[in-house]
Amino acid sequence: MNSSLQTAKDLDAADPLAWTRGEFILPDGIIYLDGNSLGALPKKAVTRIEQIVREEWGQGLVSSWGTANWLSKPTEVGDRVGKLIGAATGQTIVADSISVNLFKLVCAALEMQAGRRTLVSEASNFPSDLYVLQGLERLWPGVSVKLIGRDGTFDELVDGDTAAVILTEVDFRTGAQHDMRTVTEKVQQAGALMVWDLAHSAGAVPVDLDGCNADMAVGCTYKYLNAGPGAPGFLYLAKRHQHEARTPIAGWFGHKDPFAFDVDYAPAPDIRQFLAGTPPIVSYGALEASLDIWEQVSMEAVRRKSIALADFFLDLIDQLDASYGFTVASPRDGNARGSQISLKHPNGLAIMRSLTGKGVIGDFRAPDILRFGFTPLTLSFENVWHAVGILDDIMKSGEWSNASTERGTGAT
Amino acid sequence: MNSSLQTAKDLDAADPLAWTRGEFILPDGIIYLDGNSLGALPKKAVTRIEQIVREEWGQGLVSSWGTANWLSKPTEVGDRVGKLIGAATGQTIVADSISVNLFKLVCAALEMQAGRRTLVSEASNFPSDLYVLQGLERLWPGVSVKLIGRDGTFDELVDGDTAAVILTEVDFRTGAQHDMRTVTEKVQQAGALMVWDLAHSAGAVPVDLDGCNADMAVGCTYKYLNAGPGAPGFLYLAKRHQHEARTPIAGWFGHKDPFAFDVDYAPAPDIRQFLAGTPPIVSYGALEASLDIWEQVSMEAVRRKSIALADFFLDLIDQLDASYGFTVASPRDGNARGSQISLKHPNGLAIMRSLTGKGVIGDFRAPDILRFGFTPLTLSFENVWHAVGILDDIMKSGEWSNASTERGTGAT
Repeated sequence: MNSSLQTAKDLDAADPLAWTRGEFILPDGIIYLDGNSLGALPKKAVTRIEQIVREEWGQGLVSSWGTANWLSKPTEVGDRVGKLIGAATGQTIVADSISVNLFKLVCAALEMQAGRRTLVSEASNFPSDLYVLQGLERLWPGVSVKLIGRDGTFDELVDGDTAAVILTEVDFRTGAQHDMRTVTEKVQQAGALMVWDLAHSAGAVPVDLDGCNADMAVGCTYKYLNAGPGAPGFLYLAKRHQHEARTPIAGWFGHKDPFAFDVDYAPAPDIRQFLAGTPPIVSYGALEASLDIWEQVSMEAVRRKSIALADFFLDLIDQLDASYGFTVASPRDGNARGSQISLKHPNGLAIMRSLTGKGVIGDFRAPDILRFGFTPLTLSFENVWHAVGILDDIMKSGEWSNASTERGTGAT
Repeated sequence: MNSSLQTAKDLDAADPLAWTRGEFILPDGIIYLDGNSLGALPKKAVTRIEQIVREEWGQGLVSSWGTANWLSKPTEVGDRVGKLIGAATGQTIVADSISVNLFKLVCAALEMQAGRRTLVSEASNFPSDLYVLQGLERLWPGVSVKLIGRDGTFDELVDGDTAAVILTEVDFRTGAQHDMRTVTEKVQQAGALMVWDLAHSAGAVPVDLDGCNADMAVGCTYKYLNAGPGAPGFLYLAKRHQHEARTPIAGWFGHKDPFAFDVDYAPAPDIRQFLAGTPPIVSYGALEASLDIWEQVSMEAVRRKSIALADFFLDLIDQLDASYGFTVASPRDGNARGSQISLKHPNGLAIMRSLTGKGVIGDFRAPDILRFGFTPLTLSFENVWHAVGILDDIMKSGEWSNASTERGTGAT
């Protein structure tokens, strides 16, 4: 091998982010290449959650809405997430799921674009995003969803009837990355609003929402942002739209004065309008602990390591026996992909099962994608070297063919 | 006093639910009469949450979607909540907030009732419910919201144009309780669907959704069900409607096969359709710990103690000097109210602040309501005796008049 164990050790020795691994709980005997599905547990998340539960809830009880600042958590934590995605304060909240947040924003976009009824997305977008759009298509007379790659191309589909374009920046299967700035500009030139899904971007690649003049965005905190299974999503709405955009789900936390208990709804004059019900206080604990780490690293350093890890992985894959039959489904150019590498193989599911059995956790996406996520805060180059070594063993011995291929599950 | 400390001690000695207090963390020096806003912390919630965080997330990582049954949590925990509200299995899920869940169900009701466009509620309903309806009125052409007590009476408003009636069973201000069975029947006779909000009912009063032939319901788990601040809400949809009702927020967890990653949405053929995004796994921990306690008590015993606690409180209030100027805003008949007593007083806010300063936690609802919740699993009769004693002291000494009346906050 050209890329050897010694190469890995050298790269680790020179890694300015090596220290962050010590901030996470990483199970023994596991090489975790699935942080793009569910991020690892920050050590301090355990104590922060316990503090919220034991002290703020258990001792403070209802008074903690004020004394522990529970009321401002969705915007306070939102602003902290905003820093990681290029959003100035007052534009990001953390609450509800990504699907619910996408629903809110696309409804708002449809209302803002009264003369336009088409929603454009990609056939390869994450399905839940498509389902949200299809639900709106069924619900809202005149609205139709058109998909790039199924109904036509970008230039054919984005036209004077396009209300909004909804794209995930980093493709969940292949890791291919859109050029946010260029796409946003093209969409806006066509008079449409641009809604970005940053599920595989936040904490994975540098994002500059304000700099790209983005209109709206959603994303999740349980992947690269390490906030735990089903942690709340985030929602971004550019300040210039906040006077006009209206959430469809008018709830008390979006009221300008929730504790006045007015009979009539009056929206908050800012991003808080897009809150709905009571926010999930305990869930913010892990995210706060994770953000404490994220705020000590630069996204540029994270990106450099992400590309280096994935390039090292590709080098090692290229050195495998060609007869194994893998092809690379992700862009070879590190700047054109997110923080994952996907391989194609007709026996992908059995191979991934076999890898998992040996402690190398990636995931499988039908029909033939083996997906490996590279989370720079929790992975070493030596991890990557060992992972490919185990893949080599499995392929060489043929033992992958003993693995079950009954369909399993896994998050995105 | 007729009702004396000795009476309290005797009632406590005979209380079959006295043991449950030991299952909760109750801060020293506090008499907590606000469990109707945020329930107290079950001791085992601390360990259950830690188990989810440390073991299921930290060690199991993404595999816990299968091995720790995360995938089935919304329905598994939903069925357990269902047992407390008279819902047979397969009709209740726990996920999202009460506002989001109400939005889903009322949208579904509007679609099911194509010829009917009026949503009827009460002006005294919890404001967030009204906001959700008003948001739909703004969004959905032709839909109008009419409120009993502002636009007319029940009989005037519920007619051939009524798509759905949305009521909270137990009034959040006064504790007055609707007769679910009778109201449901009247609403259905008018051809409308009945949507119950059980925020102040679940864990407070016996509820028999199936027995009342209810159509739809929502509720929360952070009040009487002790699942923690912002814990997810529940959603009930009667089995007979599940083939027809469609959620507006079509998300991947509501897809019939989420992990097939199909481009096209196909709803789950059951209550799971009303799930949207990835469910909040850590949040289920406290609810599971709480349900472990709830499943050891009967709602009838809980109700008996609830009424006894509140009646004892009323006895003590009646014995106070009439010159203090309190009036009782809740029904005197225990069977006509939920698990709270509200007093009116023109200086209610200052008095509640003063009480809080002395460790008696209730809450205040504008303009003049002092609200006291009686949570049978965490309160003793002696607690109630002491609370009224402290109220007596505050009124007798006039020290309440020193309390700040700057408006504060608090949940519902």
